Amino acid sequence: MTSLDQLVRLLAKLPGIGRKSATRMAYHILNSDSDYADSLAHYITEMRERIKPCSVCGSYTEVDPCDICTDQRRDHSMVCVVETAQDVAVLESARVFPGIYHVLGGVISPIDGVGPDDIRIPRLLERIGEGQIREVVLATNPTVEGDTTALYIARQIEGIEGVTTTRLALGLPVGGDLEYVDRMTLERSLRGRTQV
Amino acid sequence: MTSLDQLVRLLAKLPGIGRKSATRMAYHILNSDSDYADSLAHYITEMRERIKPCSVCGSYTEVDPCDICTDQRRDHSMVCVVETAQDVAVLESARVFPGIYHVLGGVISPIDGVGPDDIRIPRLLERIGEGQIREVVLATNPTVEGDTTALYIARQIEGIEGVTTTRLALGLPVGGDLEYVDRMTLERSLRGRTQV
Repeated sequence: MTSLDQLVRLLAKLPGIGRKSATRMAYHILNSDSDYADSLAHYITEMRERIKPCSVCGSYTEVDPCDICTDQRRDHSMVCVVETAQDVAVLESARVFPGIYHVLGGVISPIDGVGPDDIRIPRLLERIGEGQIREVVLATNPTVEGDTTALYIARQIEGIEGVTTTRLALGLPVGGDLEYVDRMTLERSLRGRTQV
Repeated sequence: MTSLDQLVRLLAKLPGIGRKSATRMAYHILNSDSDYADSLAHYITEMRERIKPCSVCGSYTEVDPCDICTDQRRDHSMVCVVETAQDVAVLESARVFPGIYHVLGGVISPIDGVGPDDIRIPRLLERIGEGQIREVVLATNPTVEGDTTALYIARQIEGIEGVTTTRLALGLPVGGDLEYVDRMTLERSLRGRTQV
């Protein structure tokens, strides 16, 4: 195997990248100026060395605690619970949530042997216990595991005075077409209908 | 900019990769074990250092001349002329051509100031001059520049005794649908119709 083949093999492991795209990418790197290839290799290594999970919220950061956790202009009474650090990036780039985050780092999944204590649920309860949080927005994915995890967390919080739990709404995607929406989404969307 | 943002910016420059895919790729690298990230960075650097153009055919290789040029089981009387080194890889993985290759490293394009001597046409004529080549298969892309380049090369070879020039056939792609084929391709396909 040449180093080109090796690189294609590694690139093809990236999400959404097949063998053909990986080959095009490798040739692009080969054809581009060496500055580009050097920077690419450099930042892959540097990112792995410098970016760590925030000790408070669990999202990726170069400084600990992260910029979001220490930002006093944000609403520290609302915490949005997500499955992965990437979900934080998605919500942040959409600029829709004014509060702070909590990354679970997974979902409860008995089949895979993942229980509540294997993901960052105890740390979430600990944060809630500090007393500043008033609303927990459960933003796990609308899948069986995501729903189970949300339900489990909601049950844990139930007894805590002054803390409400909410879940992201389910429904039609904006700009979507009824024809292409699955039955489950349609049903949830109908059940959650709002007055106009 | 964090190292994560830097990496996303660099990955988004790869062909076919937008900002969203680049972000997913960067997070995948961040989430994977450090062996993967290390290998990826390593092979990007190693590939750039070790892979060079073959001094004979111009395709990418770690040994010079390349394995194809020195393979005596291949037909050295047929040379397939392509635009890029990647085209060689495409033809090789399809295992359809038994001869050897010549990579032009571009196409004639007056608008971009690229003349015949700026791409590896003189080297092609030099190789033909060595006397072993009997057929030159022009496999430049069926674009204005590719056709111009093929025509120019064909003209240069015209006078050489015992050397024929051919061009890849144009027509419908196998498995294609008439409905989705453009008018030009349909016309060429009709003109090049064969008896059944």
